[in-house]
Amino acid sequence: MNTYTVNGERLHATLLESYRLSLNDDDKQVRLWFIEETKRYGCKHIVDQMGNIFAIRPGRNNDIPPIGMGSHLDTQPAGGKYDGIVGVNSAIEVLKVLHENNITTYAPIAAINWTNEEGARFPPAMLSSGVWAGAFELGWAHERKDLNGVGLKEELQRIDFLGDAPCDYQKNPLSAHFEVHIEQGPILEQKDLSVGVVTGVQAINWYSIELRGREQHCGTTPMNSRADTLLCAAKMIVKVNEVAHTVPGALASVAVINSTPQAINTLAGRVQFNIDARAPSDERLAFLDEELERELRHVASQEGVKVEKWDKFWNSPRTVFDRTAVDAVRKSAKDSGFEYVEIQSGAGHDSVYTARRCPTAMIFIRCKGGISHNPAEYSTSEDIQAGAQTLLGAVLHYDQLLSAQGNEKP
Amino acid sequence: MNTYTVNGERLHATLLESYRLSLNDDDKQVRLWFIEETKRYGCKHIVDQMGNIFAIRPGRNNDIPPIGMGSHLDTQPAGGKYDGIVGVNSAIEVLKVLHENNITTYAPIAAINWTNEEGARFPPAMLSSGVWAGAFELGWAHERKDLNGVGLKEELQRIDFLGDAPCDYQKNPLSAHFEVHIEQGPILEQKDLSVGVVTGVQAINWYSIELRGREQHCGTTPMNSRADTLLCAAKMIVKVNEVAHTVPGALASVAVINSTPQAINTLAGRVQFNIDARAPSDERLAFLDEELERELRHVASQEGVKVEKWDKFWNSPRTVFDRTAVDAVRKSAKDSGFEYVEIQSGAGHDSVYTARRCPTAMIFIRCKGGISHNPAEYSTSEDIQAGAQTLLGAVLHYDQLLSAQGNEKP
Repeated sequence: MNTYTVNGERLHATLLESYRLSLNDDDKQVRLWFIEETKRYGCKHIVDQMGNIFAIRPGRNNDIPPIGMGSHLDTQPAGGKYDGIVGVNSAIEVLKVLHENNITTYAPIAAINWTNEEGARFPPAMLSSGVWAGAFELGWAHERKDLNGVGLKEELQRIDFLGDAPCDYQKNPLSAHFEVHIEQGPILEQKDLSVGVVTGVQAINWYSIELRGREQHCGTTPMNSRADTLLCAAKMIVKVNEVAHTVPGALASVAVINSTPQAINTLAGRVQFNIDARAPSDERLAFLDEELERELRHVASQEGVKVEKWDKFWNSPRTVFDRTAVDAVRKSAKDSGFEYVEIQSGAGHDSVYTARRCPTAMIFIRCKGGISHNPAEYSTSEDIQAGAQTLLGAVLHYDQLLSAQGNEKP
Repeated sequence: MNTYTVNGERLHATLLESYRLSLNDDDKQVRLWFIEETKRYGCKHIVDQMGNIFAIRPGRNNDIPPIGMGSHLDTQPAGGKYDGIVGVNSAIEVLKVLHENNITTYAPIAAINWTNEEGARFPPAMLSSGVWAGAFELGWAHERKDLNGVGLKEELQRIDFLGDAPCDYQKNPLSAHFEVHIEQGPILEQKDLSVGVVTGVQAINWYSIELRGREQHCGTTPMNSRADTLLCAAKMIVKVNEVAHTVPGALASVAVINSTPQAINTLAGRVQFNIDARAPSDERLAFLDEELERELRHVASQEGVKVEKWDKFWNSPRTVFDRTAVDAVRKSAKDSGFEYVEIQSGAGHDSVYTARRCPTAMIFIRCKGGISHNPAEYSTSEDIQAGAQTLLGAVLHYDQLLSAQGNEKP
């Protein structure tokens, strides 16, 4: 049983200055800070071809891959200071505690900052953990562009974070991956608990829909002679919401819309919008997918509008985390006296991709009102401390397992 | 009775090269062309403080204000080559015919290009005829900005069309104003007629609505715990359409929408949209106005979204055209053997503002499918000829009236 204790107050204090879009100047600053800070606790650094930073504190056996503690320092444009950041800073806090107590673990231990998890600047989300896990090709990822047409590789070079190390789970492997993250949902608050043991992540589809109606004069075209593309899109958005309510546990949302020509007296002739659809199982997501397409195409045909593009451009199947890694989290929470609940994550995380290539588990911490992707995002120091403490215990549990597997004497 | 004939083929040929946003480089070019062209038919030019161009062909009595034939050469961004343009070019065709037949009218005759009628670049619409008529202040109009923050006065200066003449119906008056315009609606096509006699313009309100909900994570926020601003806006857009159907003769449309933060997995927290609402009478528009506000505020309260701004930023009351001017159009159409229908215009036109300050009437010509504000906008040479022929006759009729009033011998 782990007898070392993290410091929630000092951990919380490290969060407050940091929030930024991936690979902008503020992101560069926080990356430099991450490297400086982890150097103090005996870390050496690997920067890979996607700018992912592995701050590795050596163990007794450096021939085995490190146990990773990863999350991300990039944020949403209207995001808060906890999503991702609390995970990276909890990892740093664990390194601090190991350092302060002169602990040398069996395996090396790595704090990891994954690049562009949000995908807010360079879609899709979880891009760089995805490249590491082989879900995306490196060249394709390097060519991702932001809204101004600036490329990801270009920005990596500009801020001096295009590393040499291969972004590849085989050439730069991990023994395991643990991630602390705010819940971004209401369950822990409802149950009055600090931490949740995450057993997996729900299935997700992302869509881009393009509609083509007719530009017509708003003042002269009779109400019954229109092919009003924005009205059609509005009816579809309402329908997306209705369909989501019919599939248990499912979520479906429209948050992005672009309408042209954007003149007050000319009906829109082209509208593009995105759908974010999620379900607790791959089967339910497949059902949701079918219902959405059938219902929305029906709306289009009623409105006399053409569906020019129906692009399901991203699918993330349901993730089930590794039993041993999840068990290490459970034991750690129990050891520390935290009551916990087991949760399936609604959001995608870097752990979705690491789970494909190494034993992975996550720890959720309570956040106020379940609010996220909003500057009002908030967790208490007490709950942050509980998350980092659970992370510390889980890493040490897993390290003992590796030590036993390596036939070290206890 | 007028025995002179306009040439529809040559008139149609002049339309094809011209379409442009107000005060851009293409607009400068077409203005220079307009001046060169009208010079050939004996015109002198006045450019006023809003860049309105009056090409005046002298009459026998140049102490009375000219009879104007005006419309506009600016277009919508996704507009066609007829809206406005056919009116200015018909006026030029009339000048040509007068010139070719060595006719000197009693009153001076002016072809007028009104600046920024569409309001597509510098809202609101009909801005410069509005300043001329005293509906808008000159200084306010000069400060209108386009989407890039470029000011109208600045652009007038840049293209050398900031004139010295006062933009003022008292200091630069007109004896009357006639305007040919495409119908932008289906009535003439349905009745298989070339021309319509316009008796007035319906009443119009323009609104800007701003909504404030909550940015929330699309993947973790339960469907029943959301303040989804874009969903609320979508329900409002559907409701605007429903309400319009309940008011006889009314039209209500949403063509502009802006949603933030535009991230696929973050619910919109702020949405702005515009409403274009029209009705055949001021009373019905007032009823529509009340219904829209009541129903939309109800939607917002149901969705837990706040209406942060409800701004009715433009109102144009119903316009009834001058009986004598309309009569001149009726007589001209009859003289030329055109069967016609009397129409109330759905769209606003520069004639709405001139009607406040001088006898005004309009001539509509048939356009294909009633389609406008769309590159597919089209009228045949035959219908264009009919419009210009009716304009010529109406101007000569009105000129005879002025001559009689001036006690000229017939």
